[in-house]
Amino acid sequence: MRYDSVNIRRQDRLLNESRARELLRVGEYGVLSMATEQGGYGVPINYALVEDTIYLHCAPEGRKLRAISADERVSFCVVGNSRVVSEHFTTEFESVIAQGRARVVESDDERRMALRAIVEKYSAEHIEEGLKAIERSLHRTAVIAIKVESFSGKVKQI
Amino acid sequence: MRYDSVNIRRQDRLLNESRARELLRVGEYGVLSMATEQGGYGVPINYALVEDTIYLHCAPEGRKLRAISADERVSFCVVGNSRVVSEHFTTEFESVIAQGRARVVESDDERRMALRAIVEKYSAEHIEEGLKAIERSLHRTAVIAIKVESFSGKVKQI
Repeated sequence: MRYDSVNIRRQDRLLNESRARELLRVGEYGVLSMATEQGGYGVPINYALVEDTIYLHCAPEGRKLRAISADERVSFCVVGNSRVVSEHFTTEFESVIAQGRARVVESDDERRMALRAIVEKYSAEHIEEGLKAIERSLHRTAVIAIKVESFSGKVKQI
Repeated sequence: MRYDSVNIRRQDRLLNESRARELLRVGEYGVLSMATEQGGYGVPINYALVEDTIYLHCAPEGRKLRAISADERVSFCVVGNSRVVSEHFTTEFESVIAQGRARVVESDDERRMALRAIVEKYSAEHIEEGLKAIERSLHRTAVIAIKVESFSGKVKQI
């Protein structure tokens, strides 16, 4: 995935690439933004980054799946440390925005790998039970893969 | 603005309307999701809710303004308390998603009112200086108004 440092209007607020990648890896959740026939639509979601792919899981029906089947081009936003600085009328923050293409994962092997990555990220101390939970829920869980094509990060600090 | 409690698939995770409204009012930031010609695009942003309108400010040029001029139908997502519950392979959270139509505010009166609402939200102890800052920056600040048509909230607690 390509770090896009060019299309940031405020070059003075560019986050460096390694911290942007780190934030995309460790963020507790991200907001998945989609273009639907009813306009923009964004939902917060847990996820795991595996190499250049963001994996997330959802119910096997619903608006997310309909949206990405209509337009696979999505954006994924993660916000890190954020702090209002009242006296300066601004907010300190770090954020990263990834853009890529979303698809529904069909292969059970890739679905298991993705769900395992999510368990490892959020439940590192409960891997064995997590793997059992994956097997129990696999038939009723959809997995979406977003192949990240580009990402960029911003930071503002006083 | 209408509380949409019908189109939530998981009725057991419906957040009550007053808490959803509260979260939309007090959230430190939200993610604005737009439908662009390059697909979904979402950015984190500070804002203030005034009656049924979300106000935010930005530079007088950039991708947000281009996106809403191409498609005014946007979504705005605020996440409240969130906590990973490792042993249950899930996350406790509260979130609200608002849908509405965005426009660039033209009137200086409405622009001042919106910026004042933002100052009151984030810098309540510095109102006087904030009003001065508004006057200094008014000529180089764009204000976007999102008239919220519907909103819905979700909660998950273990």
